[in-house]
Amino acid sequence: MRRTLPTIEQFVAGIRSANRVLLGQAITLVESSRPEHQALARQVIARLLEEKLTPSFRVAVTGSPGVGKSTFIEALGTYLTAQGLRVAVLAIDPSSAVSQGSILGDKTRMEKLSTSPLAFIRPSPSGDSLGGVARKTRETILLVEAAGFDTVLVETVGVGQSEYAAYSMTDAFVLLLLPGAGDELQGIKRGIVEMADLLVVNKADSDRVKLANQARAHYLNATHLLPTKPSQWAPQVLACSALENTGIEAVWKALASFREFTENNGYFAENRRKQAAHWLKEALEEGLKDQFYKHPVVKAKLKELEQLVLNDKMSPFSAADEILSKFLPPSPEV
Amino acid sequence: MRRTLPTIEQFVAGIRSANRVLLGQAITLVESSRPEHQALARQVIARLLEEKLTPSFRVAVTGSPGVGKSTFIEALGTYLTAQGLRVAVLAIDPSSAVSQGSILGDKTRMEKLSTSPLAFIRPSPSGDSLGGVARKTRETILLVEAAGFDTVLVETVGVGQSEYAAYSMTDAFVLLLLPGAGDELQGIKRGIVEMADLLVVNKADSDRVKLANQARAHYLNATHLLPTKPSQWAPQVLACSALENTGIEAVWKALASFREFTENNGYFAENRRKQAAHWLKEALEEGLKDQFYKHPVVKAKLKELEQLVLNDKMSPFSAADEILSKFLPPSPEV
Repeated sequence: MRRTLPTIEQFVAGIRSANRVLLGQAITLVESSRPEHQALARQVIARLLEEKLTPSFRVAVTGSPGVGKSTFIEALGTYLTAQGLRVAVLAIDPSSAVSQGSILGDKTRMEKLSTSPLAFIRPSPSGDSLGGVARKTRETILLVEAAGFDTVLVETVGVGQSEYAAYSMTDAFVLLLLPGAGDELQGIKRGIVEMADLLVVNKADSDRVKLANQARAHYLNATHLLPTKPSQWAPQVLACSALENTGIEAVWKALASFREFTENNGYFAENRRKQAAHWLKEALEEGLKDQFYKHPVVKAKLKELEQLVLNDKMSPFSAADEILSKFLPPSPEV
Repeated sequence: MRRTLPTIEQFVAGIRSANRVLLGQAITLVESSRPEHQALARQVIARLLEEKLTPSFRVAVTGSPGVGKSTFIEALGTYLTAQGLRVAVLAIDPSSAVSQGSILGDKTRMEKLSTSPLAFIRPSPSGDSLGGVARKTRETILLVEAAGFDTVLVETVGVGQSEYAAYSMTDAFVLLLLPGAGDELQGIKRGIVEMADLLVVNKADSDRVKLANQARAHYLNATHLLPTKPSQWAPQVLACSALENTGIEAVWKALASFREFTENNGYFAENRRKQAAHWLKEALEEGLKDQFYKHPVVKAKLKELEQLVLNDKMSPFSAADEILSKFLPPSPEV
């Protein structure tokens, strides 16, 4: 028996009243590879955006594997829900297509937070490309915010390009570090350090407290050498123990200061506008390429001319002109 | 009086007989922003590619400003023409749009080479974007090769992204370095060092010989730590003085060894095929985006929906869907 999907009205009403089942189903539509599911998800989102939403705060959390991202998010999320905030935890992990068990994994890793009625945890969507995974997370942010989750934490795997994707959809960027780093930045690329608004040395517990404080001083010096951020915010460096639940409040206070500072100088709103423009451009160009390469005439012509190009019998530019002429609208329909 | 352009036949015959005036005019067509000029250039190139060309060797030369790139190219080019090779010197410099005097500049900097009948020097094309500048240089390579220039040196400015463009159109990559570098790689990004097949410490003259040899030893150690190259070639490190003309023959011998090595293991041909595929993809996607954003209906719709997206009234993805639906061919014409 084919399961019937809820109607747009049911989705909209359900999500607005924070119905977790309907929220989950709507996210599943966003994550679906079926065009009719995606179209339905977009209609739902379009309807939800008609009504002014509660202001939200989107925070990226990253760091190398082993730095304790999940424990940190569990501690921070638990702290926030205790303050009455509603916390959604999302993730961008392009490798999650491989490990299908990540849902269970995530919930197990955040045992306490996942049982809170004020928290909503969703593992990374899967996808063929980082672009696809990131797009799904970006749309999911709109859904969880419509359901009233005012604080959105976006976890990334801490390697490769997924940080840039998370950076392009969040208001603040938290980089977790291990104590005892020495001069090397723990294999973290300079570009990622430059994105961070807050560096947090985690695992400042038991015999690592001294080491963590040394690392903190070291990173504090390092951040002084970084160029001024577009937000004019000077990155802060803190130490905490997610395991022992120390320093978590200070992390949140630093994030709250960042939010206040950037709201006051206009960067917060300006950044959101820039991000929206960025995602519009991405979506346009991805969609355009997608349709182009799927087009049967393009496919056939490309197959034919590619061989000539690869064998130096045709210039890549002539081949491109010829293929494009088969696809592009011949004359503008005004 | 409007100057009449040569015909395709005149271009083809002229370039094949190495007529420098017609070669120069054809390159001017490639560099022109007028679509009819570009179309004519492509017809000329298409005709030239019909006949099998002499095998060529394309070498990128880069290094930080002040490292002596022009003096090095003058010395290497003069050495090569003395061996009877025919040398074309091209350049990729996205900043050249600003300094219009670069043509005279280049010829003055390479006084000896520019007077040789076996050499052809062309300054960087100008352009709004690196992509545009690089595309023009890539097409110009095809023209100079058709005119019988068997050795093509592509100079880049040594900062930013132009190295990647040069790398994607050449067979070998030479990185020039200054003596006395110390531990820092003279501000050169690791990615650029990893592209180099040959590192050359220039200015190994007068009281800098010892310093140059120390730098050479240092870089030799550094290259041992790099990952194996796709070509399986182990990068060589040499020292030379372009000013005193010492070590230039050794540079060429190393490049000749590289060519032989990669021709024998198949990398040379495979790399050219991959580069052609890369340029085809670039040209297709650039052309597609260009036509898309120029389309009047797209322009109007984008202007309208962008405001909604920026003000959180519409999701970027819904807006993209709507704009794309106005542009894409409604049904495939098979």
